[in-house]
Amino acid sequence: MLTGSLGMTFNEVRKDYLLDRWVVIATERGRRPTDFAKQERQQAKAAVCPMCAGNEHMTPPAVLVYFKSGQRIRRTKDEDGFRHKSWLIRVIPNLYPAFSPPKGRISRKQIMKNENLVAAVGHHEVLVESPNHDEGPANAPISQLVHVINGYMDRLRELSVKPYVQYVSIFRNHGLEAGASLSHAHSQIIATPFVPKTVKEEMDASKKLWRQNKKCVFCDILKRERDGPRFVLENSKFMVFTPYASVNPMEFWVFPINHESSLLEMSQSETKTFAETLKTCLCRLKTLVNDPPYNYGFHIALDREAHDYYHWHLEVYPRLAIWAGFEKSTGVYINTMTPETAAESMRKNFSS
Amino acid sequence: MLTGSLGMTFNEVRKDYLLDRWVVIATERGRRPTDFAKQERQQAKAAVCPMCAGNEHMTPPAVLVYFKSGQRIRRTKDEDGFRHKSWLIRVIPNLYPAFSPPKGRISRKQIMKNENLVAAVGHHEVLVESPNHDEGPANAPISQLVHVINGYMDRLRELSVKPYVQYVSIFRNHGLEAGASLSHAHSQIIATPFVPKTVKEEMDASKKLWRQNKKCVFCDILKRERDGPRFVLENSKFMVFTPYASVNPMEFWVFPINHESSLLEMSQSETKTFAETLKTCLCRLKTLVNDPPYNYGFHIALDREAHDYYHWHLEVYPRLAIWAGFEKSTGVYINTMTPETAAESMRKNFSS
Repeated sequence: MLTGSLGMTFNEVRKDYLLDRWVVIATERGRRPTDFAKQERQQAKAAVCPMCAGNEHMTPPAVLVYFKSGQRIRRTKDEDGFRHKSWLIRVIPNLYPAFSPPKGRISRKQIMKNENLVAAVGHHEVLVESPNHDEGPANAPISQLVHVINGYMDRLRELSVKPYVQYVSIFRNHGLEAGASLSHAHSQIIATPFVPKTVKEEMDASKKLWRQNKKCVFCDILKRERDGPRFVLENSKFMVFTPYASVNPMEFWVFPINHESSLLEMSQSETKTFAETLKTCLCRLKTLVNDPPYNYGFHIALDREAHDYYHWHLEVYPRLAIWAGFEKSTGVYINTMTPETAAESMRKNFSS
Repeated sequence: MLTGSLGMTFNEVRKDYLLDRWVVIATERGRRPTDFAKQERQQAKAAVCPMCAGNEHMTPPAVLVYFKSGQRIRRTKDEDGFRHKSWLIRVIPNLYPAFSPPKGRISRKQIMKNENLVAAVGHHEVLVESPNHDEGPANAPISQLVHVINGYMDRLRELSVKPYVQYVSIFRNHGLEAGASLSHAHSQIIATPFVPKTVKEEMDASKKLWRQNKKCVFCDILKRERDGPRFVLENSKFMVFTPYASVNPMEFWVFPINHESSLLEMSQSETKTFAETLKTCLCRLKTLVNDPPYNYGFHIALDREAHDYYHWHLEVYPRLAIWAGFEKSTGVYINTMTPETAAESMRKNFSS
């Protein structure tokens, strides 16, 4: 709340660190996590789950399969007419892809039709996170979650070198209200022939600031948010906080403490710590707000040139409010929970 | 669909006429209106509706009340402790306002705190569209809908001259899934101390094009869309079409054919035609997709300087899909119904 002349108080309208994105932090209702915890949750229902172990024939051949061979993890893929069983994770092409791969070579000119039209050349994949239907990041063993993160990295490595791919978006929808039309634990990977708007704007802004200050703006943000009112947790490798202009109630961001521009720079020990960090935060969210629907998405740089100024991170958006007419027609958001309240609740009762 | 080399087809990624907003028109699923019509609809439930006739004491005093006096419509307002009965429409302050009025004078400097922070100074009102709970634009008599439009115009006229107001956003949420937490037919009016992002971007882009071409880009868009595959209907005063890069399935826009930059330029006969146009389109939507949740919002210019290049319009966003991890983390949208299919269904079986 802002205190104005004559002691009047006003809601705050806050701008994102980098984006031209404004959020009204509307505290009149003074929402707390418990206010959102009462809601009934909905789940997608399917008679037979095509992602469960045993139903591999219901999906296209996997482009990546992890399985255990003695103490080692092996990577392979399915062939037409043959599906690997006893897998740990598998990645399959989306049956209804938003972006599709070209057959053979395709030129930039064939993709960028004109200034208002681009061919949706790329990839759209589904990463099945476990043979067990309900084993998502909040309740999977860390070892399983490490497979998921490694799966993200493997697909990112393979897709990002394709000549027509400019960006790889890795994201997860949890719960029907967050857009998960199948309830089996899964993530999605979309490779696009352009850098999507939000990531592009973050990159342009951070590049500009790097040129001015010769340092990474995200590293600065971490310093500012550390031990402040929006700080959630920190371990040897990662820091978590709720952003100053959170669009969503209970939104939080996970950053590597060391300056890294892509997921692919993580070492194996970092991957494990990342899995632990993610599990911890999603468990806290689940406990505080009754297993809410949520989306998460990685923001990364593929371009080597961006290494200096870009800092990869994961953004987690709990779906506890509905964007309505105001948000959709103006591009300005209203958030009924302050990020400071969200961070406090995510710290409290969870300190080790 | 785009046909590429070797006869391959790709989805189209389309850019908005003016905004840097990209939408994948994903036709793999080939969705048609009937695919969205089966869904069950949810409505907010309240034991006692504070907006129904007879419950006026449950709301703050109305800032505007229309009532009938003989053959004339009279305008008045409530006083503390007194509420008018037998009203046609009434406008009340929102109990949980996102933006609040200052007590007394407030300077620009007191509002614009710094580059990342603005005080939420303004107004947030609710326009109750009828004494009858379910009487929304799709089923109200035209005479009642004319009162609603006149109510929008009265509030716009009063709020837009306040020195701290830079924009007035008029919008409607229909259905629980579209954010209507009360099911009584109502609209909302939010006056802000800045021009919101999406409107600002539209204004900047159209201003730039006006300087180049000395004509209104929206007038040009109307010419291009008239009788094209996205055309829905046209009468003496208004034209309706589905936009080229529709973000939402069944999205449509309503434009005055004559160049007008604000709602306030409408004559009384235009107001009536606008009410008829709106009712026609929302009836068709209701029939085609089983009374779907939707949002609508007006885009207008308050600034006299914008008169030459800005063209007011109404954007209607049916809520037939969920924005998930991809949309939220990238700012790029996926729409599973082409605007051409949407327009065809809105024309077909409805021609008079």
